[in-house]
Amino acid sequence: MHNKSILTKDIITFPTNRKFDMTLLGRVAIDFNPVDYFQTLAESTTFKKYVGGSPANTAVGLSRLGKNVGFISAVSKDRFGEYVTKYFENEGIDTSHIMTCQHGEKLGLTFTEILSKDESSILMYRNQIADLALEPSVVDEEYIQNSKSLLISGTALAQSPSRDAVLKAVSLAKKNHTPIIFDIDYRSYNWTNTDEIAVYYSLVAREADIIMGSREEFDLTEKLLGLDSNDKTSADYWFKQNAKIIVIKHGKEGSTAYLSNGEDYSIKPFPIDALKSFGGGDGYAAGFLNGVLNGWDIIECLEMGSAEAAILVASHGCSDFMPHESEVRTFIKDEKAKYGDMVARV
Amino acid sequence: MHNKSILTKDIITFPTNRKFDMTLLGRVAIDFNPVDYFQTLAESTTFKKYVGGSPANTAVGLSRLGKNVGFISAVSKDRFGEYVTKYFENEGIDTSHIMTCQHGEKLGLTFTEILSKDESSILMYRNQIADLALEPSVVDEEYIQNSKSLLISGTALAQSPSRDAVLKAVSLAKKNHTPIIFDIDYRSYNWTNTDEIAVYYSLVAREADIIMGSREEFDLTEKLLGLDSNDKTSADYWFKQNAKIIVIKHGKEGSTAYLSNGEDYSIKPFPIDALKSFGGGDGYAAGFLNGVLNGWDIIECLEMGSAEAAILVASHGCSDFMPHESEVRTFIKDEKAKYGDMVARV
Amino acid sequence: MHNKSILTKDIITFPTNRKFDMTLLGRVAIDFNPVDYFQTLAESTTFKKYVGGSPANTAVGLSRLGKNVGFISAVSKDRFGEYVTKYFENEGIDTSHIMTCQHGEKLGLTFTEILSKDESSILMYRNQIADLALEPSVVDEEYIQNSKSLLISGTALAQSPSRDAVLKAVSLAKKNHTPIIFDIDYRSYNWTNTDEIAVYYSLVAREADIIMGSREEFDLTEKLLGLDSNDKTSADYWFKQNAKIIVIKHGKEGSTAYLSNGEDYSIKPFPIDALKSFGGGDGYAAGFLNGVLNGWDIIECLEMGSAEAAILVASHGCSDFMPHESEVRTFIKDEKAKYGDMVARV
Amino acid sequence: MHNKSILTKDIITFPTNRKFDMTLLGRVAIDFNPVDYFQTLAESTTFKKYVGGSPANTAVGLSRLGKNVGFISAVSKDRFGEYVTKYFENEGIDTSHIMTCQHGEKLGLTFTEILSKDESSILMYRNQIADLALEPSVVDEEYIQNSKSLLISGTALAQSPSRDAVLKAVSLAKKNHTPIIFDIDYRSYNWTNTDEIAVYYSLVAREADIIMGSREEFDLTEKLLGLDSNDKTSADYWFKQNAKIIVIKHGKEGSTAYLSNGEDYSIKPFPIDALKSFGGGDGYAAGFLNGVLNGWDIIECLEMGSAEAAILVASHGCSDFMPHESEVRTFIKDEKAKYGDMVARV
Repeated sequence: MHNKSILTKDIITFPTNRKFDMTLLGRVAIDFNPVDYFQTLAESTTFKKYVGGSPANTAVGLSRLGKNVGFISAVSKDRFGEYVTKYFENEGIDTSHIMTCQHGEKLGLTFTEILSKDESSILMYRNQIADLALEPSVVDEEYIQNSKSLLISGTALAQSPSRDAVLKAVSLAKKNHTPIIFDIDYRSYNWTNTDEIAVYYSLVAREADIIMGSREEFDLTEKLLGLDSNDKTSADYWFKQNAKIIVIKHGKEGSTAYLSNGEDYSIKPFPIDALKSFGGGDGYAAGFLNGVLNGWDIIECLEMGSAEAAILVASHGCSDFMPHESEVRTFIKDEKAKYGDMVARV
Repeated sequence: MHNKSILTKDIITFPTNRKFDMTLLGRVAIDFNPVDYFQTLAESTTFKKYVGGSPANTAVGLSRLGKNVGFISAVSKDRFGEYVTKYFENEGIDTSHIMTCQHGEKLGLTFTEILSKDESSILMYRNQIADLALEPSVVDEEYIQNSKSLLISGTALAQSPSRDAVLKAVSLAKKNHTPIIFDIDYRSYNWTNTDEIAVYYSLVAREADIIMGSREEFDLTEKLLGLDSNDKTSADYWFKQNAKIIVIKHGKEGSTAYLSNGEDYSIKPFPIDALKSFGGGDGYAAGFLNGVLNGWDIIECLEMGSAEAAILVASHGCSDFMPHESEVRTFIKDEKAKYGDMVARV
Repeated sequence: MHNKSILTKDIITFPTNRKFDMTLLGRVAIDFNPVDYFQTLAESTTFKKYVGGSPANTAVGLSRLGKNVGFISAVSKDRFGEYVTKYFENEGIDTSHIMTCQHGEKLGLTFTEILSKDESSILMYRNQIADLALEPSVVDEEYIQNSKSLLISGTALAQSPSRDAVLKAVSLAKKNHTPIIFDIDYRSYNWTNTDEIAVYYSLVAREADIIMGSREEFDLTEKLLGLDSNDKTSADYWFKQNAKIIVIKHGKEGSTAYLSNGEDYSIKPFPIDALKSFGGGDGYAAGFLNGVLNGWDIIECLEMGSAEAAILVASHGCSDFMPHESEVRTFIKDEKAKYGDMVARV
Repeated sequence: MHNKSILTKDIITFPTNRKFDMTLLGRVAIDFNPVDYFQTLAESTTFKKYVGGSPANTAVGLSRLGKNVGFISAVSKDRFGEYVTKYFENEGIDTSHIMTCQHGEKLGLTFTEILSKDESSILMYRNQIADLALEPSVVDEEYIQNSKSLLISGTALAQSPSRDAVLKAVSLAKKNHTPIIFDIDYRSYNWTNTDEIAVYYSLVAREADIIMGSREEFDLTEKLLGLDSNDKTSADYWFKQNAKIIVIKHGKEGSTAYLSNGEDYSIKPFPIDALKSFGGGDGYAAGFLNGVLNGWDIIECLEMGSAEAAILVASHGCSDFMPHESEVRTFIKDEKAKYGDMVARV
């Protein structure tokens, strides 16, 4: 455990006087989670529908934590496109830059199989998918200028034209001094080979101020760089590019935030009765990034992230269960009362 | 009303000593029907999963009526493909000719919007769809030789290679004297223009012994033939090709079976409290075709078809609600007790 | 040798009072034939450009023999599309139903490798090809009504939408009593499997009044029919459908025309110093079909076909070298003077 | 005119002890140039075949000037693929990293229309093109390590997977301290929108040590950067990234090399009787880059580039007419004798 700590605003600052605290670029999709789980997806008969997709969940999380959120994506021209757009509007997320596809592209669907608390998997519908049809023309400079930060979800890099839209957004963010957060969010579905992954992940990572991912995701990103799959090496490499904060996650062993001043801080998961093994990352991102946008103490950012992750993996869905700040604080307080102040700290 | 009637076995006969009473070629898919209906699909939150797809429903219906049923189709290599295959096996339908796709094709999904008893619509996922990836090589002559009849669902004609597989099946059916039933089953989704529809529908219709469809479906089929959109004209035209029975449906006004001996017989819908405006056609096909395979009196065939249609539109799903023969007979008896013997007859 | 012979007009008749003697449906392309041949295509340095494509060559041949010719096809929106269209106009072929592609499709190119008199092969450019982009809407009924006969080139069946256009044309030809000539013209390039070939070839063959092809092409057509790869069996099968004349070619061993009255007549190749091993079939088709359109004695039709074939294989290109009638007659006379009256007869 | 000049080796240096002086990544194609020119391509009848494609021409040029040249590309599995590979081998260009496509991709073809000395245009065959099918796996680190410099032809960025292969090569070049030359070489054919062009051009330009292009090509590259379409602004911007030399071409008005030390040097075209309006750029690149690799005086590099450009536009083809050093020097000497020493200098 560190005796010391540091305010994140001493590590990274964001422009002021911009409308959106963060604009996220990436997919919004629909999750169908079984009500009658703990059996295979073939056997489950009844499903609840939720707005899903990693950056969409994080956007909802940030909005519920009080942030003003923009979103760049593409949706289908049907009731499902209507559903996610209205859901965003109800959550106070700006939908002015959500394009409606015109050529029969469909919103992604994720059917969740919850076999047990530890085993879950997903069946994805991502053929001729709306989100990867995002046109670069949707990314306009004014929107980037109006955003204090830009989050890129790595899945949006899987195919053109969405890939081109991401790279355009990164270019405009650099030009307009908008800090970039790269949430690697690897999904194998739409990629063709690991060289392709390494090329595009590293292009964005090189420009990013904050990079978040698992060890495996950093390995994919660094494949062509000759690094050694070590967290410290990774952090040092990216600090030499543009990064200020590198967050590397190790599942149940917790995660570590490396700072460009050479320090690093870790957090452990809160003990919790998990229902499913996913959704935690999106909650973590919302909790952690909200803190960083606020310039909070790094430990507080990590604790909020870890708490949101815990709340999410215990829930039946993702977006709908993103907590408000008071709920996170109550959760942390209850956990500390039960398990001690250091429950999540290292 | 006719005072006379006629046995269908005097109009059309089927080969004997073959393993399957009918083999159906066409899609099997999954229906997701909202539990909280009477609102838009965007608003519904909970969905029940059913095996769907018109020929799949009809296959289940026929199997429950005691027929030995074969099926030719292609499914996805995932839990959903596993689901529909196991469902068929449980229903006693032969799955030896259901191919598993290897290139990421997905099973079709149909999300149902039930706005009111009269207004329902569907949202289909049919991009890079498994059923239209059916390879001609799956259609083998021995399977056709083992079938007393072959049902072609028109949707399977929408794209190659499934289209090629259908035409191969038709060719082999002609060679092996297997009567062909053409259930037009028009779905606009995968077609590109009406000439294409007319070309392929008419190719199969020309060889069919029984053709079933709505007036609109016959019009699509006959677009290049210079007919006059009149039921009698249609029937006479197809009798000059290979047809023995032509069934033309007019929704709530009922339907008529034209026979190659010049007679025609009509049926009306049973009065019923409908829940949704679809699924009826698949029940009708099962009830009617079961009767024809049995050589029953034409009026009895029609009444069984109409009764199954009524049972289906009053149900939450399709396949799961296909009745056994005793249930259909009970339904008819109850309706007649309530509304009189002529309730569905013309 | 037959002592007897028969007029083809006693076997097949054509409608009168129609503008075009024949409308051909199929590809028009460009041949690049090396000037410095007898080496590999990699080594040849200089090429002559000719209008090519089997039905295009036959169309030019028929036009030069005095026939009024229509053509249905699709060409590229570039100088090459302009080239072939102008060439047709100069040859007096109607170009009103040659569609110009709008999505970057290119005219097919055929680079010929002439290694020796007996060994030649071709390298084809047929990716995103103009001719297979032919839309069914280009095939209009009035054009078919204005044609005394319709020739379908089998290559046009290789892919949709061209395939759909062919089947529409066949349907309209039947309706308007326009005799159909099916020139099988197998090219492996754009097909995916032999079931597909068999399905679509047999669909057209079944409706055709005249079918022309090699033994191998008939085998491809008959794959699903259970025949025995015997010429007489083939002819008898197709006579039971709609055929009046079946021409089966055996390369250097000659060819035989089977007639629906049970007779058959054969012809041998004229002895000639060949330059290349292709183009002969297109000349044969022009010579033979011109005779049949004129109702000539069957032996005369075959002799004219064989003579044109000989002239073509001795030429550097195809279309440009299609002879006028007087040239063919001079060729035959010269050959007979040199080799005797029975030079090509059996 | 400058009184001073500077050695390019004082501006940019290359690693020593590497096998290849330069490895070029980009297309190799075939040019078909009319022998009977000064008319439209529709009218020309005879064509000479040449190896073509901008980087292929430059590679031949460099090899003839004595450089050891590597090449990364993909070719068709046919006689044309064989042709260009053998041609390279005869020219002494390494072909170990030229992949052979396996899915029917074809080598690009360029048909040249030479209407007059000033008007020429091209008709390209680039559907399902071999060069853009280049797989990233072909780009191996050892090859980049063995190269003193890497030239990227911008056309290779037009589509994935070739685009991915370029970006991988750039990444490996940075890692291995291999200077990058970016020859923008804009061809509209395979691009979909100008954002896409700007994104990928600027990604490579940002890493390049030398960038060569026309004003229009720099404008395309800089579209998202907010520059002002001024040569000096462009040069200064790229010097702030990684560039050492920026060459901007203005056609008949000549071209200017901007150096990272703030100096700039210009050259004019040699007066010449041009035959066609293209090919000059590839000759220019060969002549100029050969000089830079040798560390020559910048004025000498430019003069050699301009001389090669002049020789090329006066020739019937490109690759075949790339001169040896003595020929270039003779050409310059002759021009100076005729027009004065300052004929091309500014």
